[in-house]
Amino acid sequence: MKLTAEQLADFDEQGYVFLPACFSETEIAALREEAAEIYASDREEVWREKSGAPRTAFAAHTYNEAFRRLGAHPRLIEPVSQQLGEQVYMHQFKVNAKAAFTGDVWQWHQDYGTWARDDGMPEARAMNIAVFLDEVLPINGPLMFIPKSHKKGTIDAAHDLETTSYPLWTLDQKTVTELAEEGGIVAPTGPAGSVLMFHGNLVHASPPNITPYPRTIVYLTLCAVSNHITKFQRPEWIAHRDFTPIEPLADDTLSVYAESRKAVA
Amino acid sequence: MKLTAEQLADFDEQGYVFLPACFSETEIAALREEAAEIYASDREEVWREKSGAPRTAFAAHTYNEAFRRLGAHPRLIEPVSQQLGEQVYMHQFKVNAKAAFTGDVWQWHQDYGTWARDDGMPEARAMNIAVFLDEVLPINGPLMFIPKSHKKGTIDAAHDLETTSYPLWTLDQKTVTELAEEGGIVAPTGPAGSVLMFHGNLVHASPPNITPYPRTIVYLTLCAVSNHITKFQRPEWIAHRDFTPIEPLADDTLSVYAESRKAVA
Repeated sequence: MKLTAEQLADFDEQGYVFLPACFSETEIAALREEAAEIYASDREEVWREKSGAPRTAFAAHTYNEAFRRLGAHPRLIEPVSQQLGEQVYMHQFKVNAKAAFTGDVWQWHQDYGTWARDDGMPEARAMNIAVFLDEVLPINGPLMFIPKSHKKGTIDAAHDLETTSYPLWTLDQKTVTELAEEGGIVAPTGPAGSVLMFHGNLVHASPPNITPYPRTIVYLTLCAVSNHITKFQRPEWIAHRDFTPIEPLADDTLSVYAESRKAVA
Repeated sequence: MKLTAEQLADFDEQGYVFLPACFSETEIAALREEAAEIYASDREEVWREKSGAPRTAFAAHTYNEAFRRLGAHPRLIEPVSQQLGEQVYMHQFKVNAKAAFTGDVWQWHQDYGTWARDDGMPEARAMNIAVFLDEVLPINGPLMFIPKSHKKGTIDAAHDLETTSYPLWTLDQKTVTELAEEGGIVAPTGPAGSVLMFHGNLVHASPPNITPYPRTIVYLTLCAVSNHITKFQRPEWIAHRDFTPIEPLADDTLSVYAESRKAVA
């Protein structure tokens, strides 16, 4: 799958592209069920909220077949590779839960700030591509972006070790206010199967979820192969060290898997 | 101001009525400025978040002229009195801040539960009428309602003394999930000056506000005079003991005040 010239221009201007209903309900249902199984398991890659509810499952593409296929899906790999102008490898892969009632906040931050500071990634030539496993509503903790903030480079940040169970380099209130005065704030919402692709320097956050509606999103962080990381202080399953270019699978890889899963069941 | 037959039927069915842009920007601007002065003051009626940001200013109608006029405004008193079928008195009056970045959660609850348990209010013949002092957006901590939940009576609740700085009788997750399966969840949004009138048993909540956009709402709790409270365990400035029927002021009371304020400045 390739982005149109208009989508590429939009990405350059706004810092993100939204692709509603990019995957079918059949494709997504398999992922959603296996995410629940992963969250129920006791692995070091599964991090939890202070409440015990699941927050993040790292590296699920390395130990789960459905997520392995998603991690090499042409509808995700090709647009990112197209925009970065070269082949990509998987820098990080996570399934973020934002559980009903207890899903906690992610404060305002840029991802590339962490990749640079913690992992020694040379340039912001990596980005996130998010896949909604549930419907994302305005009220169940949607991802919020400050459009155009990706043009500001890497902004000063402080290492927040207290707010939540996940350490994060976060921006201060004055900076966020000024950026929002320029770019506003958007919260793209849509059905399960929608996809959001956003720049590594785009400022974003997500509020807690106090509704009964869970909101799981899978994030692939894809990095240009020539821009691979140079510092190895985080565990391998958080910041991968396998820089092999990803070969996209067939477009029907997930629906074939979903069918085979049904056949077994 | 009176509600139409359709609005009254809607209130009966859904448990709330939304009146967008009921007050003008001139009327609201005066209230917003005086709310900021109240929050900056050091009074026992002003409660704060754990962060120190203002959360609630109680009884502002008793010590501030702009809020005194709002507390007897015909656009608020008349519709509630009409729905309850008799004159009303002020049971509680609060200015709730939900400050930018730090405004905290209000968990799922019914207000009448508190009025009954803490104040000995005989029946659910009281309600809230909310006035937006800022624009309420989907992302800055809007009030969320579960429509039709007001028909369930007073639901079992637990006294939450830990989540925030404000003690509250809150509903459990199973109950909220079941109610939302029946009625859904709505989050009415609109410009400053909009008004929300909602039943004392309508289940509601509001999420934290992590945006740079403050979201202050004034709540008048108006109770039918014949239904006045019978237990006096909370301070007088939280649960008032003056059961005198409110005589509505003239419709231009706030705009006259805003003009006089400008003349002085």
